[in-house]
Amino acid sequence: MEKINIGDAFIYPMPVALVGALVEGKVNFMTAAWLTRANFKPPMVAVAINKAHYTPIGIRENRSFSIGFPSLEMMAATDYCGLVSGRKTDKSGLFEVFYGELTTAPMIKQCPLCLECKLVEVHEYPVNLLFIGEIVGAYTEERFLTDGKPDIRKMKPLVLTMPDNQYWTVGEYAGQAWGEGKKLKSR
Amino acid sequence: MEKINIGDAFIYPMPVALVGALVEGKVNFMTAAWLTRANFKPPMVAVAINKAHYTPIGIRENRSFSIGFPSLEMMAATDYCGLVSGRKTDKSGLFEVFYGELTTAPMIKQCPLCLECKLVEVHEYPVNLLFIGEIVGAYTEERFLTDGKPDIRKMKPLVLTMPDNQYWTVGEYAGQAWGEGKKLKSR
Repeated sequence: MEKINIGDAFIYPMPVALVGALVEGKVNFMTAAWLTRANFKPPMVAVAINKAHYTPIGIRENRSFSIGFPSLEMMAATDYCGLVSGRKTDKSGLFEVFYGELTTAPMIKQCPLCLECKLVEVHEYPVNLLFIGEIVGAYTEERFLTDGKPDIRKMKPLVLTMPDNQYWTVGEYAGQAWGEGKKLKSR
Repeated sequence: MEKINIGDAFIYPMPVALVGALVEGKVNFMTAAWLTRANFKPPMVAVAINKAHYTPIGIRENRSFSIGFPSLEMMAATDYCGLVSGRKTDKSGLFEVFYGELTTAPMIKQCPLCLECKLVEVHEYPVNLLFIGEIVGAYTEERFLTDGKPDIRKMKPLVLTMPDNQYWTVGEYAGQAWGEGKKLKSR
């Protein structure tokens, strides 16, 4: 079939997260899906956030933030955090908040997994800031683990597609990474 | 339930991609899952790749690369690209290759969607290089679109979890982004 150039496209699919920060002394959460691991050891992440948002003020102020992965049950509250700005709406009461090592990276008790991050540096692009953080703690509960590792079937996170702006669940187990390709190794 | 600190955790889940580059004149593809959108306009991406890999040589040499999203049917070949290095194994014959505007960003015909990227800059971290690229073209086929937008149900991409190293399909439609949270707006 013929290839067509649609000019621009997003990542398919994107993980749905809630970025937590203390902004002007206030606990705040924003929805984010533009994030990735950036380094293996020490563990580092990269999160792209629109410059106009409220959260960047707090991340820069306290040089810390959190990343929480909400479960399917939290979809409405998660989406709400992307609809209203902390500038105008106090989102601190939406979730139960807890802290790890840092006192300036509020995390969400309801999230099956939260990463606590220290800001390493910020890269500035035309619309977004790319925050690079080092993971200093990863908080979960025994009930979300299998063999000591987070189990996506128990976490039930969401993924996002744009520009159709839809949330999706994670589906079935498809295969083993660093495994499925071994059958082609005889080539 | 009590929170436990497992120290480090990955992103849940991660998109599975094939990064294409011309390395020392040879078409090469590597499996990658550490990637995100980095800027809205112009469209930019960030991809973290281990410094020791072969692909970074080509990306730096030609200041360009591609990102392809493989479908479930391509899982074995996709995984194979993460098992063997282009240093020792010629992976150029695994897929049908095509080019867009750039002559140095090989793309995979079998992938439902491929992004063609010009290198903007590289950030160096202890283990990984974070390549920032501008998307200059996005290639798909009519059969993967619905209302002119890539449709994840037609693309059938994979996601990855680590450290259990498992591939997963994308599941069911869960809800509308910038929509589901509206019911909480009366708060």
